[in-house]
Amino acid sequence: MPAARRGLTGPVEPQIVDDLSAFKLAFRRHAAGVAVVTGLTPAGSPVGFTATSLASLAAVPPLATFNMARISTAWPAVEGTDHVIIHLLGARNRALAARLAGDHDERFAGDHWAPGPLGLPLLKDVPAWMLGRIVERVPVADNAVVVVQIEDGGLGADDDALLYHERTYMTPVALTD
Amino acid sequence: MPAARRGLTGPVEPQIVDDLSAFKLAFRRHAAGVAVVTGLTPAGSPVGFTATSLASLAAVPPLATFNMARISTAWPAVEGTDHVIIHLLGARNRALAARLAGDHDERFAGDHWAPGPLGLPLLKDVPAWMLGRIVERVPVADNAVVVVQIEDGGLGADDDALLYHERTYMTPVALTD
Repeated sequence: MPAARRGLTGPVEPQIVDDLSAFKLAFRRHAAGVAVVTGLTPAGSPVGFTATSLASLAAVPPLATFNMARISTAWPAVEGTDHVIIHLLGARNRALAARLAGDHDERFAGDHWAPGPLGLPLLKDVPAWMLGRIVERVPVADNAVVVVQIEDGGLGADDDALLYHERTYMTPVALTD
Repeated sequence: MPAARRGLTGPVEPQIVDDLSAFKLAFRRHAAGVAVVTGLTPAGSPVGFTATSLASLAAVPPLATFNMARISTAWPAVEGTDHVIIHLLGARNRALAARLAGDHDERFAGDHWAPGPLGLPLLKDVPAWMLGRIVERVPVADNAVVVVQIEDGGLGADDDALLYHERTYMTPVALTD
């Protein structure tokens, strides 16, 4: 945008920034629920990652989206198979969120998961999970938007929601006036 | 999924549900940051809506996504123009979030906005906003996934993040052990 245009942005404080800074500073002020997406590579290896991009797209039919890098170790599962499991994490799952965002070799080392529907990796003790059939994979630069149709699911014990905000895990509370 | 398969879901409590219930119950346990997307119809009318689907896609180049219904009054702006403004809302903006989710005729009645970059509706007193150039519109059923590249932005006064969870507005707090 030409510099002359920037003078038009009066209604908020005039702290105008370049595109990357705008993006980073804005998303630093955004809070997101935490999910873990798991799948199986075509060779049958469990893969997965912690995602803060899970979003509802529609209820009828039940559709959801998440975003990922195509260099992710989980991309071969999304590219080469039809289904994933999306787990909604609670406050008690923060170690699980950190594990599925950490060292790839450690993500499925342990008994925190077991084969679930269609043999897909199903994480234990999460508040909710959904089986998603992949209906769209939209490549954008080095990334992809993935659209899934929810086909099945289950609930575990309820919990406060797990959030990621300001580079740490948090949980929601009611607003006070 | 055949009923016989459902017995495999041992690792979480065996409360298995149909696809729509799975979707609704899972997303009820999901918390999301609140954004408002605004645009101009090709005829120049301000339109906008409160979104809980805003997600980061990539930082380089800076890309983000949001989801919307193609019956939305804002769809003509997304379909027929190149840019939108995405506002990140804070706890002080809950009335703004409710207004932009309410009666269409009331959404831009008032002085809570003014023309901003490219003449797009810019909401006042939000913690952050981004100007997004629409780079992908992915129709899925009656909905669309929209991908934007962030080109500009600005910051207002900082605030606690605004969340939507359990059908109400909330804010994040640190987890206690």
